[in-house]
Formats: sequence, structure tokens, C-alpha cells
Amino acid sequence: MPGRPPSMLDLARRLGVSRATVSNALRGKGRLSPELAGRIRALAAELHYIPAHAGRALRTGRSATIGLIVPDFGQPLFPIFAQAIERAAKRRGFAVLVGDSLGTAEGQAAEIDNLIGRGIDALVIIPTRGTTVEAGSQPVPVAVIDSAATRGNTASSDHRDGGRQVAHHLADLGHRDVLLLAGPTDSKVARERTAGMVEVFTAAGVAPQVRHSTTSFEAGAEIGAAVDPAGFTACAAAYDALAIGFVTALTARGVRVPQDISVTGFDDLVWARIVSPPLTTVRQDLAAIADHALAVATGERQGSRLFPVDLVLRASTAKPRHKNQHLTGGAS
Amino acid sequence: MPGRPPSMLDLARRLGVSRATVSNALRGKGRLSPELAGRIRALAAELHYIPAHAGRALRTGRSATIGLIVPDFGQPLFPIFAQAIERAAKRRGFAVLVGDSLGTAEGQAAEIDNLIGRGIDALVIIPTRGTTVEAGSQPVPVAVIDSAATRGNTASSDHRDGGRQVAHHLADLGHRDVLLLAGPTDSKVARERTAGMVEVFTAAGVAPQVRHSTTSFEAGAEIGAAVDPAGFTACAAAYDALAIGFVTALTARGVRVPQDISVTGFDDLVWARIVSPPLTTVRQDLAAIADHALAVATGERQGSRLFPVDLVLRASTAKPRHKNQHLTGGAS
Repeated sequence: MPGRPPSMLDLARRLGVSRATVSNALRGKGRLSPELAGRIRALAAELHYIPAHAGRALRTGRSATIGLIVPDFGQPLFPIFAQAIERAAKRRGFAVLVGDSLGTAEGQAAEIDNLIGRGIDALVIIPTRGTTVEAGSQPVPVAVIDSAATRGNTASSDHRDGGRQVAHHLADLGHRDVLLLAGPTDSKVARERTAGMVEVFTAAGVAPQVRHSTTSFEAGAEIGAAVDPAGFTACAAAYDALAIGFVTALTARGVRVPQDISVTGFDDLVWARIVSPPLTTVRQDLAAIADHALAVATGERQGSRLFPVDLVLRASTAKPRHKNQHLTGGAS
Repeated sequence: MPGRPPSMLDLARRLGVSRATVSNALRGKGRLSPELAGRIRALAAELHYIPAHAGRALRTGRSATIGLIVPDFGQPLFPIFAQAIERAAKRRGFAVLVGDSLGTAEGQAAEIDNLIGRGIDALVIIPTRGTTVEAGSQPVPVAVIDSAATRGNTASSDHRDGGRQVAHHLADLGHRDVLLLAGPTDSKVARERTAGMVEVFTAAGVAPQVRHSTTSFEAGAEIGAAVDPAGFTACAAAYDALAIGFVTALTARGVRVPQDISVTGFDDLVWARIVSPPLTTVRQDLAAIADHALAVATGERQGSRLFPVDLVLRASTAKPRHKNQHLTGGAS
């Protein structure tokens, strides 16, 4: 049948299985042997099968559209994440409509209902902290971008390993007195980042002081303005914005980074390169995560994947000052 | 009729005019005397008239939704602008769906079509540079956020006056050799900012060197790495990101801001406070612009409004170095 993309039924006939079996394999549902599901997906890829909703859109001339829910555009990572998802969708010929939960569970529920009510074909959801989104809970395919703790069709960075890499770096430099800016208690992502840090510090015999707050620049600045800088030699933050606020407040007090205190962030925002000193931080592979989420949402792939993260070494970390060189002693 | 919001027909009967006249007054269309249009809008406000599309949504239980088109979420102003619009919509009980033009005219056209195809009730559009959106060009009410040069239902900052304020500040400090980072040639906003600067500099007998580029941090850094810093004592940028990139590159070369070169930005991004030194820049009143755009989109108000901007003085500007103190002379 040249000139027409294959239907699910075409795939089913070629493999001698039912249409429902093909549908289950492509959606990642039902009880199929991994071997059979793999063969079905391989044939679909080989014959350039287009999922039904995308095919419908091609027939009707209305563009197939992914709904994307972001937790909060006020946090600088999410606009960048949204663009990675928009680009991954565009490569597949999908449009994207974005809803912003504005940081609340009610906002998220309303955005999901609104997008589904407008006939979008699939959803990609980055859940607001304190919420869990089940991939099977909606009438359209859902891909969730979250932490490794989320079940279902999830794409997530290995936040815990990022935390481990940060802690290894600081412990290897010789830091024993560590402040940990752990972010919000109800964020799974923050908890995993922090758990990775605590795991490695504990193994190294270091018991970090843990402080919780929001993820904002302002929260980091508030802590930086109030802490006793003689109480620790390094500060590991669960978010770049927290770290940057913390550094800005310390610098305003005449505390030097990294000579007096080393500081690390997490996310590698463009601003992490701009602050003085540039921030040692952890980079997520947003493009790979976005691509997996789109592949799941459009039925190309199924299942969860965990993506590696990279420690980016810059100028905000160094060996600790000597024990008996107190800040007020002015050892420079 | 207690308990029911008034309809257009109720308003028409109270005033002894036709329903079409009321509709024209509320939409800002047709030929009405300003006096009559004003009376109709005043009565609508007094009786808490709800526009038909919002009323329909209240009756059907489906939330009334504004479509928002942003030019490019990769530029840090637009996520913040989007949240200002989301908050203004929420106060009115409207949901918002966002489409990102990804910086192209084709992307913008596709996002508009997609949102209208999904039954949104009104559009707020921040046009991509190089495009003009006519408020009357779509089947739903449209509010445009752009420059003063745009006709129709527009909400815009007085970008030209912002440019004037920057130039007055630098000229008053005594700067005569000025580099102007003017941004893209096809952006109306950039052109107005730059025109305001050139107007005041010219009146002060200063002929700035003008450089065009994209609006990005990277573009500013590229120019900052290549310029001869002895050629000018001040640099006025049409965007904060440009200014921050420029400062970062100069600082890396050992050029001091503001001792060797004063630098100004435009937009007052949160990052303008964070760079070293904190950036003198121009602040837009995003909340007021968002509120006017929503009022226009929902039929509460009509017409264009220009919003004042404020110069924010920080540490990146100072008097120029003396003429014969060359950079290499090391006058500190």
C-alpha cells in the first residue's frame, strides 16, 4: 500500500496478532510478553506507523497537539524545559499548548481538565511539588517528567546520583562542615537530590546541617544573610537559584566564595555561568528527557527511563580554609 | 432580574439603544460617539456585565479560556510576562493556554490557528519580532502587547521614553563616547528603545556607535569580547541579557564596570540585580500591561494604552574616566 502510512490493523495482519494486541504494545498496556511487544514496536518503527491521533489530525488537517503542564513558569528551569519539549514535539509534527499550574495542585488539576476538554491528543506533565500524576489516570496518553520515585511512563533525571556527585566532589576537596540547602520538603525531586548528598556525606563521616526553604533566589539570599559563616566551609544547594541567592547574600557580607565557603548549585541554568564566581552545578539532559517524554506521549515508546546527569566544575568550589583560620582572622 | 448577570440586551433596553450599539461599544468597534460609548461601558461596569463568551462558559461549566501567544520562552522576560497575564486572567476567572512561537512568524501563525481551532474565547498576543498582528484579524477578540507603533487594541510600555531616560542618565553623567547595543533591526520594541536613546544623545551632541545583534546573553558576550574598550566610556543595551553578556565578557578581559565603562540594560530581569555590579536598567510595569490586555480581551475595556517605565539606578553606571586616562594607563 504505497503512499499510505500503515494502520494498526496493517501491523496486526503482518504479525498475525489482533489489533488490540498491537494497540496494547504501542501504548504499553495489557499483558504482553516483552518479546512480542518489542517485535510489534520494531515493525511499527520500520514501517513508519503514525499513531491514530496523529493520523486523524493528518486526515482532518487539524494539527495533532500535545498538552504540556509546567509547575511554575516563575522558576527559570521550566521555560527552558518547555522549549526542549516543544522542539521534540515539532520534530514529530505535533503542536504544543502549555498550561502553567502556578505552583498549586488545584491549578494543575484545572490545567489538565482544560487541556483535555480542548481535545489535545496526549499530555506531558511536569508535576507540581506535592502532587503525583499517574500515567494511566487520564483519557489520553500521558508522559510524566518527574523523579525516579514516580511510577508509570516517566522520564526523569537521576537526581539522586547528581546529589551523590556533588557530595563526592565536596567531600574529596576535604569539606567536613557542610550546610545543605535542601529546598521544599514536599518536592520529590528535591528529596532525591538531597538524599544522594546525605548518602555520600554520611559514608564520608560528614553530618550536614539541613535547611529547608522554597527554591527561589530570595530564599537563598535570606538564608545567606542570616547564617553564621563560621559554622561551615561548604554549602550544597538543591537548586541553582537557591545557590545564587545564597552567594549574592554572602558576598554582600564580605564572605568570599570559594575562599571562605564553597557553594554548589543544581540545574546549570544559564545564570550559573554569569554569577561571580561561576557556579559548580549539575546539568540535566533536558533534550533527552523531552525526547523520551514525547516518544511515550505519541506511542512510539513505552515505560520509564532514568537519564544520567553531569557535574559541571566551575569556580565556586575549592579546598576548605584551614580550621583555625576564622573568617574574622582575614587569612587571604 | 436579581441573581442573573445582565445581558447585552438588558443594557440596551436600559439605555434605549440597540443591542448592536452596546456590542460595538463594548468591543470598541463601529462608529459611536465617545460620549455614548462611555455611558454604555460605565453602565456595563456598574451592573457587572459579563461578556457573552465568559457568560457562556459560566453556563456550560467549561472554563472560559484565553489563548496567549509568546514569541520565545527562551528569552527570560516572556515567562515572567506570561505569569503576569495568567494572574490577570485568573482574577477574572479565565484559564490561560500558552503557545510559543519559537521566534518565527510561521510558528506564530500556527499557534494562533491551533488555539482558535480549540475554541479559546479570546487571544492575547505578544508578536514575534518582524511580525504585526492586527487586533481585528481574528474571529475572537484579540489584545496585542507590543510597541506604541502597533495600531488596534494594544498594551505597551513606553519603550521610547525608557530609551530617553537611559540616555539622559548617561549624558548627565558626562558620557560623550557611547556604544549602543541596539538589538535586532526587525524588532519594533528594540527600535523604539534605541530611537529614544538616539533622540536624547543627538540633542546632547553625542553620536553613539550603533551595533545590531540578537537579544541574547551570547550576542552581548561576543560583542564585549571583540570591542576596543578605549573607544567609548558607556554602553547602553536594548536588553538586559545583552548588557549582562557584555559586562561578563568585559570583566573577563579585566575591563572594570563602571570605572572604565558604564553599562545599562533594559527590562529589569531578576538577574540584573545579581550580576556584579548590579545593573542600571529600565523596569516595565508588567502587571499593569497584563491587566489592560486582559480587560481588552474580555471586553471590559477597549483601545490602546501606553504604560510608563522607570529607570532603576544601580552600580553599573558612573561618571566617565578622564579622557587622557587610557585603559592601559591603569588609573584607579
